[in-house]
Amino acid sequence: MKCVLVTIGDEILAGSTVDTNASWIGQELQNIGLDLDYHVTIQDKPAVIIDELKYLLSHYDLILTTGGLGPTPDDVTPAAFYTLFQSRVKLDEIYWSELQSRYNTQKRRISNLNKSQAMKPHNGSMIPNPVGSARGLLYRRDNTITIALPGVPSEMKAMMTETVIPLLREKAPPSLFRKTLRITGVPESVLAESIMPVMEAHPHCRFAFYPQLINVDIRFSCRDASELERVAADIRQIIGPACYAEGKLSLEDVVGNLLTAHGKSFATAESCTGGLLGNRITDCPGSSAYYMGGVVSYSNEAKQNFLGVRESTLIRHGAVSKETAREMAEGVRQRFHTDLGLSITGIAGPAGGTEEKPVGTVFIALADEQKTSVHHCHFKRNRKDNKLLSSQYALNLVRIYFNE
Amino acid sequence: MKCVLVTIGDEILAGSTVDTNASWIGQELQNIGLDLDYHVTIQDKPAVIIDELKYLLSHYDLILTTGGLGPTPDDVTPAAFYTLFQSRVKLDEIYWSELQSRYNTQKRRISNLNKSQAMKPHNGSMIPNPVGSARGLLYRRDNTITIALPGVPSEMKAMMTETVIPLLREKAPPSLFRKTLRITGVPESVLAESIMPVMEAHPHCRFAFYPQLINVDIRFSCRDASELERVAADIRQIIGPACYAEGKLSLEDVVGNLLTAHGKSFATAESCTGGLLGNRITDCPGSSAYYMGGVVSYSNEAKQNFLGVRESTLIRHGAVSKETAREMAEGVRQRFHTDLGLSITGIAGPAGGTEEKPVGTVFIALADEQKTSVHHCHFKRNRKDNKLLSSQYALNLVRIYFNE
Repeated sequence: MKCVLVTIGDEILAGSTVDTNASWIGQELQNIGLDLDYHVTIQDKPAVIIDELKYLLSHYDLILTTGGLGPTPDDVTPAAFYTLFQSRVKLDEIYWSELQSRYNTQKRRISNLNKSQAMKPHNGSMIPNPVGSARGLLYRRDNTITIALPGVPSEMKAMMTETVIPLLREKAPPSLFRKTLRITGVPESVLAESIMPVMEAHPHCRFAFYPQLINVDIRFSCRDASELERVAADIRQIIGPACYAEGKLSLEDVVGNLLTAHGKSFATAESCTGGLLGNRITDCPGSSAYYMGGVVSYSNEAKQNFLGVRESTLIRHGAVSKETAREMAEGVRQRFHTDLGLSITGIAGPAGGTEEKPVGTVFIALADEQKTSVHHCHFKRNRKDNKLLSSQYALNLVRIYFNE
Repeated sequence: MKCVLVTIGDEILAGSTVDTNASWIGQELQNIGLDLDYHVTIQDKPAVIIDELKYLLSHYDLILTTGGLGPTPDDVTPAAFYTLFQSRVKLDEIYWSELQSRYNTQKRRISNLNKSQAMKPHNGSMIPNPVGSARGLLYRRDNTITIALPGVPSEMKAMMTETVIPLLREKAPPSLFRKTLRITGVPESVLAESIMPVMEAHPHCRFAFYPQLINVDIRFSCRDASELERVAADIRQIIGPACYAEGKLSLEDVVGNLLTAHGKSFATAESCTGGLLGNRITDCPGSSAYYMGGVVSYSNEAKQNFLGVRESTLIRHGAVSKETAREMAEGVRQRFHTDLGLSITGIAGPAGGTEEKPVGTVFIALADEQKTSVHHCHFKRNRKDNKLLSSQYALNLVRIYFNE
């Protein structure tokens, strides 16, 4: 089944919005054994939409479109579909009154513009939208299914999950087995070179490397489930502890699971990351069981008052130093009464660097009841990236702590 | 000048990586008056790349590609370019020794796989990469420029900024004037309906609405700069204070600017957002001038010990309550010795909701020397989205505080 995704919207081409729908849809299709073969983003002009779909209709079995189903005048997808499929449309009175009463219940004002969202073609079917007002469209012509979904991610996702995926599941081919290993702290090229022997020994497997700022994913697939397991074991053997997870688990998930398994609690003391570490930890549902909280000690005063960092340490070694990181980790551990204390202090940039401590200098410390380890890092990215890299390094310290 | 972007990579189609490059490139082209007309994502198979480029070469003036320039075997873009443009390639000895010494200096191990990144075609030119090892390719054929850039965002951006944008700037058409107004707290359809009269009064302007989870951008453009200003003024008149910024400024930027302008300091007390608020605030360079830090009081104990929330308040009203939010904001303000204190306490989900306080219930409080205002919100999204919406609401309270 050849699948194509069409993103409709000038805002995507203009870069005002990042198209996160495309990756989500790609993953969902993969999960049911379908590959997205092609993805195109086009302008929200009716003629452009019609031309593109005309071409795709003769080359693909499934065409998914997102975007352009909203109530405003720049939402032209339905009109383009009606023209392309020569639909006669009329107001769906039942849906329109349902929409009106839904808005009433929510005490929201319905706009006359929403009426366009209650239209219905004679030769296509409607896909219900459980979370918004824009319904989807579904047309079948020859052997191609063409589906229009809204661009708002929560709406598109709900409609995919409830209607489109169940429909497509019946059409999926015999399964290809897939696995992803997630690695942090090793560059892509070194990783690829070191697992080259595994790749050569398994010519029927496909391997791909997905480098991101804070990790590299190795994804591999083949038709034989037991061969896939052997490949995974071989790679793990070579990579060792740099592999922190399989599948979609994030590093914060892994750390949360380890803390839970060992019955340990922890707290954070953040300077340059400003709360990012706590934010990542609390992205995991149930994190309140092991994460007691933290202090964002952005000022020296806060480091002293809330964490007990000594004034003499700040004067002698500076706020960005091994010694301050140590006292922050120990202080937050004591004051939150937790098993572990994790701290980050550094210079995220762009300003604040010195010759001795350039931008990107970060000290990260992990304290338990007995000892404190302090790590000196030097990240070389922009402010946000340096923050993210610092938080990754810190979380990874906790993981390694439990695996040693 | 007709422009197309080609993203090359199975990892993008498979959804393992979100393509943030595309939006960045779209914005950069817009800034020099060029529109991205088309964007396509294709598999990293040489035949697919060659077929796609062959078609595009006869339809576009500028073809940008990203991805597939890395050192691993799934990086096939250069080979596809060499075939398409019938290039003879040889090892660029100068670049190869430069690369080797660069790795040596950084105490990193160079892999033999990196050699593929030092090849050079006889009929195309190389685009320097100031931050990585993969150089770009540039070919001119007839009137079309074709450029291959790496997929790693930091490398692609550096190469666009230093080489590609300056080259394209000469070819940009007479300027179209553009403006973006950013609005928070008003749904897209209500926004569109209310500014409909402005849209109708200016038929030569183009309007577009870009809704995101925490805001809506209205972007409009026309060839007449003074008309553009009139349109902006008319929209501002209708929208009022819900418009928080023009252009690319984030809400945290706006809040930072207001705090700086008024010479006020502030601190945060976060429960369900877990540090997200502090993280957003500290994404702004220079935020240490007004942000003293905060407490992530994820446990009741932390709320008492670090913020002075009374045990009786927690027992009587619960951790998620108007009263706790108030004491958190007042407590963090006092203990950080700041002008303002901002607090968030709520139930992000998916668990923890009750009939009285369902998931998404959030209390947000802002305290100054004289008074504390507390707001009761109910967000209806998933955990991460509820956190983001809470942080947006809290930041917006600070903005409104200064604008009243």
